Amino acid sequence: MATLFTKIINGEIPSYKVAETDDFLAFLDINPNSKGHTLCIPKKEVDRIFDLDEATYTSLMQFSRRVALAIEKAIPCERVGMSVIGLEVPHVHVHLIPLHTMENARFTYKEKLEPEEFKAIANKIASYL
Amino acid sequence: MATLFTKIINGEIPSYKVAETDDFLAFLDINPNSKGHTLCIPKKEVDRIFDLDEATYTSLMQFSRRVALAIEKAIPCERVGMSVIGLEVPHVHVHLIPLHTMENARFTYKEKLEPEEFKAIANKIASYL
Repeated sequence: MATLFTKIINGEIPSYKVAETDDFLAFLDINPNSKGHTLCIPKKEVDRIFDLDEATYTSLMQFSRRVALAIEKAIPCERVGMSVIGLEVPHVHVHLIPLHTMENARFTYKEKLEPEEFKAIANKIASYL
Repeated sequence: MATLFTKIINGEIPSYKVAETDDFLAFLDINPNSKGHTLCIPKKEVDRIFDLDEATYTSLMQFSRRVALAIEKAIPCERVGMSVIGLEVPHVHVHLIPLHTMENARFTYKEKLEPEEFKAIANKIASYL
């Protein structure tokens, strides 16, 4: 069965898209730790990041870096943090999280945003890419 | 002033070393989220990961992948997670954390280990590199 993220890649589930290449997609986390929290995923459906072949892993990390640099320009924050956990959705995803305090890295506190705000944030990050 | 991690690189502060190359060092986190929690750092003293030049960033990510694959072999766990936060020590460090539950990714619960156990874990991970 297709993962939630494959359904997003295929457009079966809508998302606030930030960046896309032939192999990777970046979109806003719908349940963000902070404003601008973005997920970078390979289109290839692989569960665990260290099971990716080295070339795909390296390209995903380089794609994530480009997106992170755009987030830093778009979203005022102390720095952009990166986390890969993956205990919930079995499809590799790199969390890029604008950090203000350590709380933003713990996945406990969550921001509630309106669709308009998600759209504006996605467009602003994309404008720096 | 040299960061805590530069002092570890220079051997002024002892560490449980897992892997070392000309440019990178991996050693056990002394205050681990779970057994096997390892830090991968560039020897170059840079504060924020996305301020690293692309080549150093890419090499650090490839080094971290090799260490993570060894941790997966050495430490029974659901998967190895990766986090870069950096609000405390101003020297880039990639956390590689054996995950059993989401709690291991939150940096709230900490394991207490004896020096003998740290040594045995570092040696076991290193043996798979």
